[in-house]
Amino acid sequence: MHDEHTGRRTADLPDDGRRRVVIDAVRPTVDHGRYAVKRIVGDIVSVRADIFADGHDHIRGVVRCRRSGSDGVSVADLVQMPNDEWAADVPVDAAGRYEFALTAWIDHYDTWVSDLAKRVEVDSESDVDLAIGAALIESAARRARAGGALAANTRPDDATRLESVVRLLRDRDRSIRERAATALDHALIDVVKRYPDRSFEVATGWYPIVVDPPNASFSSWYELFPRSTADEPGRHGTLADTIRRLDYIADLGFDVVYLPPIHPIGRSYRKGPNNTLVADESDPGSPWAIGGPEGGHTAIHPQLGTDDDLARLVAAARERGILVALDIAFQCSPDHPWVTEHPEWFVTRPDGSIQYAENPPKKYQDIYPINFESEQWRSLWIALKGVFEHWIERGVTVFRVDNPHTKSFPFWEWCIASLKADCPEVVFLAEAFTRPKRMYGLAKLGFSQSYTYFTWRTDAAGLRDYMTELTSTDVVEFFRPNFWPNTPDILHDYLQRNGRPGFMIRVALAATLTANYGIYGPAYELLESEPREEGSEEYLDSEKYQVREWDLTSEQSIAGYIARLNRIRRDHPALQHDRSLRFHATDNEEVLAYSKTATADGRTDVVFTVANLNARHTRTAKVEFSPAAVGLHDSRPFRMRELLTDHGVTWKEYWNRVRLDPFHNPVQVYHLIEEEDA
Amino acid sequence: MHDEHTGRRTADLPDDGRRRVVIDAVRPTVDHGRYAVKRIVGDIVSVRADIFADGHDHIRGVVRCRRSGSDGVSVADLVQMPNDEWAADVPVDAAGRYEFALTAWIDHYDTWVSDLAKRVEVDSESDVDLAIGAALIESAARRARAGGALAANTRPDDATRLESVVRLLRDRDRSIRERAATALDHALIDVVKRYPDRSFEVATGWYPIVVDPPNASFSSWYELFPRSTADEPGRHGTLADTIRRLDYIADLGFDVVYLPPIHPIGRSYRKGPNNTLVADESDPGSPWAIGGPEGGHTAIHPQLGTDDDLARLVAAARERGILVALDIAFQCSPDHPWVTEHPEWFVTRPDGSIQYAENPPKKYQDIYPINFESEQWRSLWIALKGVFEHWIERGVTVFRVDNPHTKSFPFWEWCIASLKADCPEVVFLAEAFTRPKRMYGLAKLGFSQSYTYFTWRTDAAGLRDYMTELTSTDVVEFFRPNFWPNTPDILHDYLQRNGRPGFMIRVALAATLTANYGIYGPAYELLESEPREEGSEEYLDSEKYQVREWDLTSEQSIAGYIARLNRIRRDHPALQHDRSLRFHATDNEEVLAYSKTATADGRTDVVFTVANLNARHTRTAKVEFSPAAVGLHDSRPFRMRELLTDHGVTWKEYWNRVRLDPFHNPVQVYHLIEEEDA
Repeated sequence: MHDEHTGRRTADLPDDGRRRVVIDAVRPTVDHGRYAVKRIVGDIVSVRADIFADGHDHIRGVVRCRRSGSDGVSVADLVQMPNDEWAADVPVDAAGRYEFALTAWIDHYDTWVSDLAKRVEVDSESDVDLAIGAALIESAARRARAGGALAANTRPDDATRLESVVRLLRDRDRSIRERAATALDHALIDVVKRYPDRSFEVATGWYPIVVDPPNASFSSWYELFPRSTADEPGRHGTLADTIRRLDYIADLGFDVVYLPPIHPIGRSYRKGPNNTLVADESDPGSPWAIGGPEGGHTAIHPQLGTDDDLARLVAAARERGILVALDIAFQCSPDHPWVTEHPEWFVTRPDGSIQYAENPPKKYQDIYPINFESEQWRSLWIALKGVFEHWIERGVTVFRVDNPHTKSFPFWEWCIASLKADCPEVVFLAEAFTRPKRMYGLAKLGFSQSYTYFTWRTDAAGLRDYMTELTSTDVVEFFRPNFWPNTPDILHDYLQRNGRPGFMIRVALAATLTANYGIYGPAYELLESEPREEGSEEYLDSEKYQVREWDLTSEQSIAGYIARLNRIRRDHPALQHDRSLRFHATDNEEVLAYSKTATADGRTDVVFTVANLNARHTRTAKVEFSPAAVGLHDSRPFRMRELLTDHGVTWKEYWNRVRLDPFHNPVQVYHLIEEEDA
Repeated sequence: MHDEHTGRRTADLPDDGRRRVVIDAVRPTVDHGRYAVKRIVGDIVSVRADIFADGHDHIRGVVRCRRSGSDGVSVADLVQMPNDEWAADVPVDAAGRYEFALTAWIDHYDTWVSDLAKRVEVDSESDVDLAIGAALIESAARRARAGGALAANTRPDDATRLESVVRLLRDRDRSIRERAATALDHALIDVVKRYPDRSFEVATGWYPIVVDPPNASFSSWYELFPRSTADEPGRHGTLADTIRRLDYIADLGFDVVYLPPIHPIGRSYRKGPNNTLVADESDPGSPWAIGGPEGGHTAIHPQLGTDDDLARLVAAARERGILVALDIAFQCSPDHPWVTEHPEWFVTRPDGSIQYAENPPKKYQDIYPINFESEQWRSLWIALKGVFEHWIERGVTVFRVDNPHTKSFPFWEWCIASLKADCPEVVFLAEAFTRPKRMYGLAKLGFSQSYTYFTWRTDAAGLRDYMTELTSTDVVEFFRPNFWPNTPDILHDYLQRNGRPGFMIRVALAATLTANYGIYGPAYELLESEPREEGSEEYLDSEKYQVREWDLTSEQSIAGYIARLNRIRRDHPALQHDRSLRFHATDNEEVLAYSKTATADGRTDVVFTVANLNARHTRTAKVEFSPAAVGLHDSRPFRMRELLTDHGVTWKEYWNRVRLDPFHNPVQVYHLIEEEDA
């Protein structure tokens, strides 16, 4: 019978019905391989699948793994686990796109060996049994002669050896018992297994893995406006000033310095201080109103400096272990060169004017959105990708992408894949402050990291639920959260109301809950907390619209506190990834307790954090923690060192009491000291 | 850049980058559409997906659904739900294979209407806004002229009407306000939406649905050996005797009568009573040792009767609302005609003999397994499928398949799909007593129902966990459990030790937990409970190896109890499906409480069952149940009728006390009486 719609002939026989193995539930995958899972260089990918066939025949299988663009294919044996699960560990050693596929087949030889051993146990082996085995080994010998090995570990004399065994097994002058012993020799079995009969093997498709550089999964970001980095009051800061700021940032312990757009800023409809509609000559405008007569997305604002200044900044940062991240915001001011050179990349209205951004009835006449339904979408996509390429050529490998959810999703999938094909070291942070499915969608199609809802999660239940979703579901395969307590757009009410303890709590949570986090400074460490107006999340006198001067030497500054947090993050592998996060019980709903662990070279690093989310009042709580609770041997009493204060404490019970004073130590970060360390 | 391995050119542009909609997480599906979801005739399939795009543009979409082999495609609008979820209900009216696919596109017209309404609210609509809308409606008019409607509800004058609206919108003699009012007319909007611009639509692939007859999801099975149905002691029963047994089975309330294999039985290595290795001339042998000189899988055992007798049995059963199920066991006795006619379908050993079944060191020389790696697998598959076709032609539409997990999985997928393509009414019950992944694998690839682990789940926690897995996970999309308290192979220890109460409890659990269930009788209703030996699950003097006589009039019989259970199942839609199952708290770990609900014609049928799993001792328990607990309005006090005893009771609280006496009423099945019924 032929199905007219699908073209599938339901009654038709398959090409070879003898392929009896079923491979199901391959993991890790995202949407059955539609998108890539994410890993970093040096990871071991734990591949799993359900593999089974009919009957009692033994199964064998392998995982093949290859790096896109490379000829080599690694092969790892699948090992059988309980309940028809099979497993193999596959290392990924370099940044880039990998793919893995599974192959499995019925292993009649292994079945025969196992059956023969059972027969020998009860003295029931027979001449026919040995004849069956001889035929199986003879076919392995044929494959050995033909070069049909599974892997590379073959010996030149394998075929000869197998042929001689076949003769022995068929030699009726030898006793059946003697021949069975020959057949069950382990060394022989190893040789035969190098040449399996894979005539009826079953193979899956290829499942993608994107392997990123380590900073994709562990990074500490510091955002600052270069134009506010001048030493003298009133002067427009420069990239050269920003270089002078690097030591300060390095002392704080950050490893990414992220600059808002550094391009020429439009004049038309330029916004004044506090987002007012009228700007005067001296107002610098918003860096996100990109493009002027001096150039667009590949130009540098003349007041900030030159290409050479940027190169110097990138180099000076690298010397300090810091990467420079640029902000890519695909939108144009009316003065952007593209508006005249490529009006076809924008929407033209019936009156001939170009459509500005709108959220009716609000109008944003200083911004022209790009039209992703342009008939010239091909040249547009190539130009947009070219913006990244321009800055990658200048040594930038980290990009923060502004509002990616207002640009075409298929564009991002193509753009990121293409860029990473040429330069797998590039990392993209999505400023995807949008609905959950879109936020996750952007991560699936390629963004390395994403902003999150952390900024608005301030109570224990909210943080616990959110972190559980991020670290204990399939989300962990494709979404890397980057937690920001503030951004130039978001001064949360919690920071507005809670002063210094509030700032300490939020940055400590971000730094210990997730391996990627960032702050917008110096506003953060200087406790900038005044909103534009009551009820607003906008900063008063926001740097988005004006140059600001910051007194980094202020006694208010919590720079030292942040530096300690970053030091702890660097010293403790446990804090450098998110998968091991687990929450621990407390008897106070305002106190959140959680641990992270990491094991390397046989030692397990355990960091246990307790946070008082009430920034006004001291809270005491009993918290449930013991080495056994994180899967270690139980060794009561055990030593813990609080890392922010460098104080040791001995805990004896599963439940221990902590006292969290918001003005002194609202968040406590404990390291479990193993006996040999203590 | 070209990826040499995958052939995918990662840097290449897509065909049309302007298709901006993303459709994700389509459901219901099994393994992303690799296998079909299962439904029955008359179901409404609730299709869901996550659908989103960049930016703020509105989206529109439809689900298309078509029956394989039919030309018609139904189209249902997708409706937007919270959190980027979209939904449509799709009815499936006939048995057969269906497929559905989703299509979605950016709806610029709908976006424009919505924006215009917002502008009008604040008096900010402009001539340009109306010009943009006029162009959108003009393009809809062009599609109307070209016959490009989304669905069938068009009017002949649609194009003319749209064209006149375009003129009105462009008529500068009319005020902007007046023209905006014209544009926002609801009747106009309905017309425009019949002709959406789907230039950049995104479509998914087709996802399969198998629609089965109602008895696939609600059926009560009674297994009996026809050879034990003779009225006179010592005589071999016949199909004619079985016809005389039908009234008894109908009185019990069963609607499927399942016969173990009815084929000629092999002589070679025939097993004697209690599976002894030596049989004498008078021993009838095991019906599963199929095939003799009289024929194989398409022949009827001469002592049972003829093709005509079977036809009479099938017809007589149908008259009583009962379907006859045959047992298909693809294995052969050494005397099966295939052994000589098609030795190539078996494994031939090096000594020329045919390989018998083995589980070393155990040998089953009375059985030749079929070789699914035969070079002649094509002719084998066609012959095996032909066995089903033979019996389907004789009116049999229900098959119980013996040990399907020892036959090739790809064979089953092809065989079942092919048979159902020609006869969608056929139902297959898998005797898949095997490991979980294989049991589920057989269900995915096509079996309509499956035996389960119920037979060994006897405590409350085990039953609760198992039912939760079966009814509250994706398993429910492809796996229909069929619960059997006993089979000819399994006399569980619980039945051996617990006498009449044990038999009452187990059959009542099976009948109320799942919509498909069955018993092996008359052994069950006559409380047959003696094992072959201590510790065995085999029956003593099992019917598998000898003819038995049963005294159906025994005072011991619980036939009346079973008949009441089946009557309750027929009267209550709540018990006729499994998805609504929910467990309710009790204060006694030996007492299990659960409810099922079904809504039809605005009335909700609620059945609440309480079971004492301790067959020796009376248990009292408080059980948590109220109309609110099953999603109904709360109306305390409420009336419940216990259906086995036909006693009414009024419950006032959420927690009510029950007393469950194993010798009287160990399981109580309550019906919630709605006020108008009470």
